[in-house]
Amino acid sequence: MMRPVPAALVSVPDPSPDLLQRAAGVRRAAMALGRLSDGERRQAVEAMAAALEAAADQIVAANQADLAAAAADGLAPALVARLKLDAAKLAGAIEGVRQVAQLADPLGVRQLHRELDTDLVLERLSVPLGVLGVIFEARPDAVMQIASLAIRSGNGALLKGGREAGRSCAAILEALREGLAGSPVDPQALELLTSREESLGLLKLDGLVDLIIPRGSNELVRFIQDNTRIPVLGHADGICHLYVDREVDIDQALRIAIDAKTQYPAACNAIETLLVHRDAAPAFLAAALPAMAAAGVALRGDAVAQALGVSQLASDDDWSREYSDLVLAVRVVDSLERALDHISRYGSRHTDAICTTNASTAETFLRSVDSAGVYVNCSTRFADGFRYGFGAEVGISTQTLPPRGPVGLEGLVTYRYLMRGNGHIAADYASGVCSFTHRDLPL
Amino acid sequence: MMRPVPAALVSVPDPSPDLLQRAAGVRRAAMALGRLSDGERRQAVEAMAAALEAAADQIVAANQADLAAAAADGLAPALVARLKLDAAKLAGAIEGVRQVAQLADPLGVRQLHRELDTDLVLERLSVPLGVLGVIFEARPDAVMQIASLAIRSGNGALLKGGREAGRSCAAILEALREGLAGSPVDPQALELLTSREESLGLLKLDGLVDLIIPRGSNELVRFIQDNTRIPVLGHADGICHLYVDREVDIDQALRIAIDAKTQYPAACNAIETLLVHRDAAPAFLAAALPAMAAAGVALRGDAVAQALGVSQLASDDDWSREYSDLVLAVRVVDSLERALDHISRYGSRHTDAICTTNASTAETFLRSVDSAGVYVNCSTRFADGFRYGFGAEVGISTQTLPPRGPVGLEGLVTYRYLMRGNGHIAADYASGVCSFTHRDLPL
Repeated sequence: MMRPVPAALVSVPDPSPDLLQRAAGVRRAAMALGRLSDGERRQAVEAMAAALEAAADQIVAANQADLAAAAADGLAPALVARLKLDAAKLAGAIEGVRQVAQLADPLGVRQLHRELDTDLVLERLSVPLGVLGVIFEARPDAVMQIASLAIRSGNGALLKGGREAGRSCAAILEALREGLAGSPVDPQALELLTSREESLGLLKLDGLVDLIIPRGSNELVRFIQDNTRIPVLGHADGICHLYVDREVDIDQALRIAIDAKTQYPAACNAIETLLVHRDAAPAFLAAALPAMAAAGVALRGDAVAQALGVSQLASDDDWSREYSDLVLAVRVVDSLERALDHISRYGSRHTDAICTTNASTAETFLRSVDSAGVYVNCSTRFADGFRYGFGAEVGISTQTLPPRGPVGLEGLVTYRYLMRGNGHIAADYASGVCSFTHRDLPL
Repeated sequence: MMRPVPAALVSVPDPSPDLLQRAAGVRRAAMALGRLSDGERRQAVEAMAAALEAAADQIVAANQADLAAAAADGLAPALVARLKLDAAKLAGAIEGVRQVAQLADPLGVRQLHRELDTDLVLERLSVPLGVLGVIFEARPDAVMQIASLAIRSGNGALLKGGREAGRSCAAILEALREGLAGSPVDPQALELLTSREESLGLLKLDGLVDLIIPRGSNELVRFIQDNTRIPVLGHADGICHLYVDREVDIDQALRIAIDAKTQYPAACNAIETLLVHRDAAPAFLAAALPAMAAAGVALRGDAVAQALGVSQLASDDDWSREYSDLVLAVRVVDSLERALDHISRYGSRHTDAICTTNASTAETFLRSVDSAGVYVNCSTRFADGFRYGFGAEVGISTQTLPPRGPVGLEGLVTYRYLMRGNGHIAADYASGVCSFTHRDLPL
């Protein structure tokens, strides 16, 4: 999809000397952290968990102050729920930190091992990215999750949480750094950014920050993409589809549709549009209309769907909308090809599913839909790092280049080519004195 | 390193309707191409090679017209050499296309295969990126190489070569498309851009182009990075170092230094700075000074190096310069740590090497230098896709995120998560009715 001309970059001010200095400190600490062993990084994350436990009272008190301020400001109930961090929720988050400590080491994995010639051996090893810049919602548990993923993967992090969670985040970060102080990791590896100026300054820290991970609205993600040279890991939209094929188990398809729409409508992996093959539409919609109504879902259909009982007419805009709510657009299509065309035109390449009993139709769908997740006979809501078995998730990427889809520890690493020789020079291979063997060795 | 504020994006005009239409055609053709089998894509690349052979006379004639125009314009001899495509060079390039056809298929590789629960199986398969936008020098052989890599990896491509090679590129592209016309691949998968307006328009084809690969000057790469939302695969600088340790085989180190500087000084993997441990400096420089002079290399040293016979004093600017010429900066350092600091401060994270006989020093260097290539006792000139055994190369990336270093076919693919279920819904796992097995299956 073509997007409008981005705003000029000049609107972003330069980082302050203080921010530059702190970011340089994070980078230094991260370089040392990246050289630590698996056990040392694991120990550091365990120490973070222990320190959070020790500081539980202060953290909960800070959160209560945030909640009181939010109440005074009239924050929406859904946001208050996300902001709230009581003792039970904190204990769960600390348990999550401990689980991150137990995840398999993403570093030092040998991805390639090749003899180029006698005594000239190349290997490719996974290494940390360096420093992450993470901008996230007013959700105190996100600080703990992101910080533990960063340290486990050998990365430093500059963290900027939503304003409303300011006191909570500060208390949590203080505890995390206290934990690190008793570990092999320099506490400077984690820094909290607190002002809007600092989060704008973050965008200009190229050379000090290797990846920016924005979590939040589409507008936030696009603003950041347009205003930084640092690579951005973000998803701009989650317009997911479920296509109900001509040959289908209607009960199963309906169960999946209800789950994919209602299990958590605000999630990016919830469906926004239901495509139904015209031959299946009468029977499917006859069952779906009352079921969706019972689940509180408002439907907006094209003319054919309307003729089959969907009360509200969908406009062309509906096909590109991420409702993030109990609203679902319904379109009746003439064929699998039309469904594929619709997804290609309006989808955001996040996750799309088909319900079909025809194995060959399923394979065509799997081969043809160019999204991070393509599913057969299951709910799009499975697009999630925990459900994929990654143990944790920093976000879901809708960009085409890897990391794509749910991103766990593996998305926070890169690789380095290491080569050990014994006086080998390129001229000998250009002249033909030597020649390459290119023999793969065991990984 | 902090870079200056980029130019505002508004300087780039919108793509013309003609360019939009052609790019959409490439995208359509690429989507079909991405679904073809290994054999079909291989056959298409073979057909491209055969068509180039059939059109050899026209291509060489077009190149002679380009050369005549270049002579009239007084093009520099190095650029003329690069522009020239005689029958022998063309035959070599066609052989290169055939080799690309023979490379292992980068698509359909199963990277993950996991049972999430009974009958709910996740897999991650490599798939094409989609459409590449490649901007390259006035080098006709580059069109053949890039086009064959694109088709082999299932990607469409918009190609923009240097102006001076216009007639050659047009003749080559005509042959390539003629070859594709007799293959399962739609010839529309390849498009040639010819004007400056079109290459600027390319930067705004987000949604139609998935990756831009600029080959050329640092200025070109930065301009593109600052003016597009499309991911860019480029290297901005190649400031490579060779560090000669205290414990070193001086003859071997000198041979490596000469190779790394002189074997092809204009290459990005040639060294620009030699760091020498102070204990090794007297003996090493005594041998290096006459050898470098004999090889035509001009040295610029710090004060200590000057005291040891380097005639010209280096300024601070020299440490950040990519000479791309027979010039080498020399700095004497007190320790391995000072060498690492220098590389961290001035390097471009491309490729850096150490010469040492101490295995532990070598391992510290390998672990500490955060560059795409880190070498022990061999020349930095090995940083190359062919030498790594990738069979071909689209470029060398100095970005941190993968693909990093020399990029072959593997860098032109991404992946997709495919999931096959049997009515599985997320609510059953949230409620505890079902639980995940997360059992890895054979790849």
